[in-house]
Amino acid sequence: MSQSIKNSTNVVPSIDDVRAAHERIKPYIHQTPVLTSEYLNELTGAELFFKCENFQKAGAFKVRGASNAVFGLTDEVAAKGVATHSSGNHALSLSYAAGRRGIPCTVVMPRTAPQAKKDAVKGYGGVIVECEPSTSSREETFAKVVEQTGAEFVHPYNDIRVITGQATCSLEFNEQVSNLEAMVAPIGGGGMISGTCLTLSNVAPHIDIYAAEPEQADDAYRSFKAGHIIADDSPTTVADGLKVPLKENTWHFVSNHVKDIQTASEQEIIDAMKLTWQRMKIVIEPSCAVPLAVILKNPDVYRGRRVGVIITGGNVDMNTLPWITSHQD
Amino acid sequence: MSQSIKNSTNVVPSIDDVRAAHERIKPYIHQTPVLTSEYLNELTGAELFFKCENFQKAGAFKVRGASNAVFGLTDEVAAKGVATHSSGNHALSLSYAAGRRGIPCTVVMPRTAPQAKKDAVKGYGGVIVECEPSTSSREETFAKVVEQTGAEFVHPYNDIRVITGQATCSLEFNEQVSNLEAMVAPIGGGGMISGTCLTLSNVAPHIDIYAAEPEQADDAYRSFKAGHIIADDSPTTVADGLKVPLKENTWHFVSNHVKDIQTASEQEIIDAMKLTWQRMKIVIEPSCAVPLAVILKNPDVYRGRRVGVIITGGNVDMNTLPWITSHQD
Repeated sequence: MSQSIKNSTNVVPSIDDVRAAHERIKPYIHQTPVLTSEYLNELTGAELFFKCENFQKAGAFKVRGASNAVFGLTDEVAAKGVATHSSGNHALSLSYAAGRRGIPCTVVMPRTAPQAKKDAVKGYGGVIVECEPSTSSREETFAKVVEQTGAEFVHPYNDIRVITGQATCSLEFNEQVSNLEAMVAPIGGGGMISGTCLTLSNVAPHIDIYAAEPEQADDAYRSFKAGHIIADDSPTTVADGLKVPLKENTWHFVSNHVKDIQTASEQEIIDAMKLTWQRMKIVIEPSCAVPLAVILKNPDVYRGRRVGVIITGGNVDMNTLPWITSHQD
Repeated sequence: MSQSIKNSTNVVPSIDDVRAAHERIKPYIHQTPVLTSEYLNELTGAELFFKCENFQKAGAFKVRGASNAVFGLTDEVAAKGVATHSSGNHALSLSYAAGRRGIPCTVVMPRTAPQAKKDAVKGYGGVIVECEPSTSSREETFAKVVEQTGAEFVHPYNDIRVITGQATCSLEFNEQVSNLEAMVAPIGGGGMISGTCLTLSNVAPHIDIYAAEPEQADDAYRSFKAGHIIADDSPTTVADGLKVPLKENTWHFVSNHVKDIQTASEQEIIDAMKLTWQRMKIVIEPSCAVPLAVILKNPDVYRGRRVGVIITGGNVDMNTLPWITSHQD
């Protein structure tokens, strides 16, 4: 579906486009802080810098891309609203950005999605249209929404406007921390890592870019090794933001600029998540524990280097933490 | 016991003493950040500023007082080390500070204290001497430690050096945020609130100081209303850092400078803790959720005001979160 309705400005953006995006979205996002942990530095032998997009508006970096898409629309296009299909942070972020612009946002979501996620989207002003939990139902429902509303489709990651928005994260990061030698970000559909590649290949091409992926959803890893996109059917991982496959726009950046893709097991991801909560006192999603997990797993790659780590988000169901078998009160 | 062995410089410190303490401890502490949350501002109708001592060294503000005590010792006294009885953040903090100075730290702790707490103290270089879980055994054991080592006793809160160290927190806070109108901190033994009173009564006496306490350990509240110290026998609360009673040094500050003491129920504390984790993406202890709980409970007191909230620490057992009935994996 993305092929048929994605926007038409499908050329590689320049660093000027990234800077323009940053100016465009600044009123709607936080410049998130960079935290460090002496404990984790000692543990890894690296000097780690954590860019905390868990403190970002709507709780994740995705608000950067969503805001860039929403605020880059002409008034005429914007008037018809925006739409997407997502049950994750992109749905929240697009709802938030649309709300700030005062335009409608429709989110197609399986009727089986957790009520908490539906409530969160509604809390940011998004309108939910439910579909059956199948790709065909989602595509059919989404096509109807677009037909009826004329809304602009903003894909969660395979959209140049979104990638350019995500690129503002490493632009800030590289200004906040000097002399970074490597940067690690999680990879799912590849929106964040593509934005990172876009920025760093222009402003700091000496920084090695590593992508971190769950072993159980390692389609990007296998794509990278094979030299072409391989999509998994339905991977299962605690890092639920990282289940989606690469698409042509993100594959462009991954295949051209990523130094390596490293993977971590479910237990390694959960351990790294818990360790981050315990020692850094911040709430992070399982997805953004994958970078720390691969750093711990590949000490020879990172030891002695100044390493930027992108903490992508902090939207977690507090009642079901992955290291606790829970019975909610 | 504190009467007989506390240090002899028992006069009210000046703001110059606080500034000297700040210079003394700066190399060993973080200037912690101040975070805000639009969501919580909307919810409370106040403008809230959170001073994040959960990001402090050793995970809590207590490192300020402990460092001031440790680094204020003469070389001769320091050589014999320091000692305390605590199973909480003060034990960690004193161990950390002693380690930084390169002197021994002995911590008397009930043999029944959780292994995790013992391990944490050892992790910071403290030496644990176990006692039976009774006041008499603790006092007897502690007296022996002091007799054998000649170590300097650093009380967790009823010590002017410790209070002066804690006072550096609101000194920073008041410089980081302009025009605060109220400040809220949790109250247990009263070390943090006393430090807050010490600083603000000198540099910003117009700021109203509120203390927040668990209903189930409301000895400070009852003391405040009665006009003299009332100590509870053995209160039970999820806010386990706030079980201890006021002592003469902290009572001095509380009785002279606190505007009011407000209390919150166990459920209100847990709800405020979970809300903070969910919306602010930070890990805070139950103790420092009490201020937000009382702000939510007393909207008329705080609405429309710029309110500083001291997040005192983030040392939490991740396996037993109070809103989850857990069976650890």
